[in-house]
Amino acid sequence: MPNTNAFYAQSGGVTAVINATACGVIETARANAGRIGTVFAGKNGILGALREELIDTAKFSDDAVARLRHTPGGAFGSCRYKLASLDEDDREYRRLIDVFRAHDIGYFFYNGGGDSQDTAHKVSLLGERLGYPVTCVGIPKTVDNDLPLTDTCPGFGSVAKYVAVSVREAALDVASMCETSTKVFILEVMGRHAGWIAAAGGLAKGGRDDAPHIIVLPEVPFDEERFLAKARSAVERAGYCVVVVSEGARYADGRFLSDSPGTDAFGHAQLGGVAPIVAELVRARLGYKFHWAVADYLQRASRHIASATDVQQAYAVGRHAVELALAGRDGVMATIVRTSDEPYRWELGAAPLARVANVECKMPKAFISRDGFGITAAARRYLAPLIAGEDYPPYRAGIPDYAALSMATVPRKLDP
Amino acid sequence: MPNTNAFYAQSGGVTAVINATACGVIETARANAGRIGTVFAGKNGILGALREELIDTAKFSDDAVARLRHTPGGAFGSCRYKLASLDEDDREYRRLIDVFRAHDIGYFFYNGGGDSQDTAHKVSLLGERLGYPVTCVGIPKTVDNDLPLTDTCPGFGSVAKYVAVSVREAALDVASMCETSTKVFILEVMGRHAGWIAAAGGLAKGGRDDAPHIIVLPEVPFDEERFLAKARSAVERAGYCVVVVSEGARYADGRFLSDSPGTDAFGHAQLGGVAPIVAELVRARLGYKFHWAVADYLQRASRHIASATDVQQAYAVGRHAVELALAGRDGVMATIVRTSDEPYRWELGAAPLARVANVECKMPKAFISRDGFGITAAARRYLAPLIAGEDYPPYRAGIPDYAALSMATVPRKLDP
Repeated sequence: MPNTNAFYAQSGGVTAVINATACGVIETARANAGRIGTVFAGKNGILGALREELIDTAKFSDDAVARLRHTPGGAFGSCRYKLASLDEDDREYRRLIDVFRAHDIGYFFYNGGGDSQDTAHKVSLLGERLGYPVTCVGIPKTVDNDLPLTDTCPGFGSVAKYVAVSVREAALDVASMCETSTKVFILEVMGRHAGWIAAAGGLAKGGRDDAPHIIVLPEVPFDEERFLAKARSAVERAGYCVVVVSEGARYADGRFLSDSPGTDAFGHAQLGGVAPIVAELVRARLGYKFHWAVADYLQRASRHIASATDVQQAYAVGRHAVELALAGRDGVMATIVRTSDEPYRWELGAAPLARVANVECKMPKAFISRDGFGITAAARRYLAPLIAGEDYPPYRAGIPDYAALSMATVPRKLDP
Repeated sequence: MPNTNAFYAQSGGVTAVINATACGVIETARANAGRIGTVFAGKNGILGALREELIDTAKFSDDAVARLRHTPGGAFGSCRYKLASLDEDDREYRRLIDVFRAHDIGYFFYNGGGDSQDTAHKVSLLGERLGYPVTCVGIPKTVDNDLPLTDTCPGFGSVAKYVAVSVREAALDVASMCETSTKVFILEVMGRHAGWIAAAGGLAKGGRDDAPHIIVLPEVPFDEERFLAKARSAVERAGYCVVVVSEGARYADGRFLSDSPGTDAFGHAQLGGVAPIVAELVRARLGYKFHWAVADYLQRASRHIASATDVQQAYAVGRHAVELALAGRDGVMATIVRTSDEPYRWELGAAPLARVANVECKMPKAFISRDGFGITAAARRYLAPLIAGEDYPPYRAGIPDYAALSMATVPRKLDP
């Protein structure tokens, strides 16, 4: 059967559940072996196609594939690589089509964020134009939860759960000690442009005086005086103050807090490092003893505390992508459609890639509390189901027993 | 019955399992209700005694007490407060005895680190001298694992597990992306004087090229050149390098890395912040893209990933402390005695407080690899059983359902 092989690639920052999506793709392809051939995974994402470094997933046992479901990170490697603009230079796109043609690849599954959906869309257009049609289906993935037309992005729910659990736990620690020790604790989380992850910290809050007392979102310009007043008030009322700050927090003029000159000795934007900036502000202006944490990769790799809902959805969009492709739905992204908040119900859908690409979905105003430092009941209704349920990995000797697959690639058929 | 009440206090930095110890104390006291009266908990630790702020644990239901077993932080509050030297000023010790006398307290259980064991010892001596004998039993607790005469300190095993799991997970993330993104990832963990916590990160390592590639211990003077050579070699061999660095990492002249002048704009010792220092070194000298994380309180509050062994031992030392007290063993600390590495077997013991107090137990040389950047097989034999087993808390709506007890105190009988 010509052109029934598939190419699957992981793109951009990896997550705790992107391999669950890979598992959904591969298992569903295996279940449809009569209609879909070999699933090749790109070694290091789309680079694997450009370099013709294809991993033949057929060599993995069913058990090895099943173990992807509970393994964080990108099992086949991922990359941050944006193809050149199709209008200016289509050579990379042509190279993709050449590689697909050489390996009888008729299905392209691209598992990533907005840029990746854009790429998938362009490959779909170009394949047709070049007389080698490829069925291109995008699969959503981003911890930032910033894709449009899907209720949520697999990967987000698990980070959200990690942040909510961490805030709840750290708050108990700080509360225990605040009489004589730390009064302000600052947790920096991811989210360069959208505050979904920081907002999820709000799920840890029970009553009015519970942590987190302040959430600093990129969507709300950071006002030092109002922040300081709120922190002081929390310490005076509750005895302590827990702050969740998004790495993308910025001033009204658009500058990131983490770019503040003179307050951070190296201040690379990639550094993270907004937590120490906020800590220094607290020290200098309020004089409280403080501590800070930067979760960085721990938050998006934390499969051990993954959301069961997220794992299910990550698997389901992988499965659904294959079903869409087999139904001939080219140029779409598998989506999650919410049909009810409580009880939470969702189903699978599809959205045109053309409408997904390059749209960044930020927190709506209705999700942000009036003072800008918290989340509303509407936000809680949206967020709460996404962190529901636990899906623990198996352990061996006290450590999760994660899959480790061989990255060996099949022989090349083209010149590099 | 006079003087059969008990006073229990949590001291110093709290842990994921110190409340399991509280649970062990209270449940065992309840099981011996004929011989031991009310267990009063100190509000905010020893301050609760000095201020006569006593929480009557009898008001908590059996269920509420049982829930302490899975709740992190210090349920009754803790404090960093070192009593004045007994020789120079015994007023605080006399005050303790006065409060104990006023509330018929004949048992003192002090749950903390080295300083606390010292205090318990002095209370024992002074009570006798003042004609009000109190049976003083220390209960070990410290994430730093630096108490002598006990095989391990409850609290450590859970931090160790958190660090090992986090390293394993973050390493999968970094490995996925290293071709085009981060090549060096640095995780800062606790341990100001002893490197036990950082060493536990070594449990994540399987094969030679697995993470962590470098562990920076306080016990080994930090040599920049050797560190950089090792990091470069890891990146060249494995494609990436994961570093676990102890907050107590220091140069040969004794200076903490986190105190480095000119590299950190605020550089308070309490800040943590050695990770960004090491990151800056990597950037400036090797030019690799890097990320860093600072776990801070998340690591010692992470009850969600507690070691089952640690939870059992934390409970057991609480129970054993009461048994020791009822057996009239004054001036001892409950200990954990290892009888076998594999299969791991342990039993409970007791050590004289006089021999525990103010002794800091660092990593033995035999546990540190020859190059100083890793752990030996002997260290793994010691550490591995301590992180074994999972003991998940119950969840509600996606977040652990932790206990929250009232901190209301009983009426005072003395002048403040």
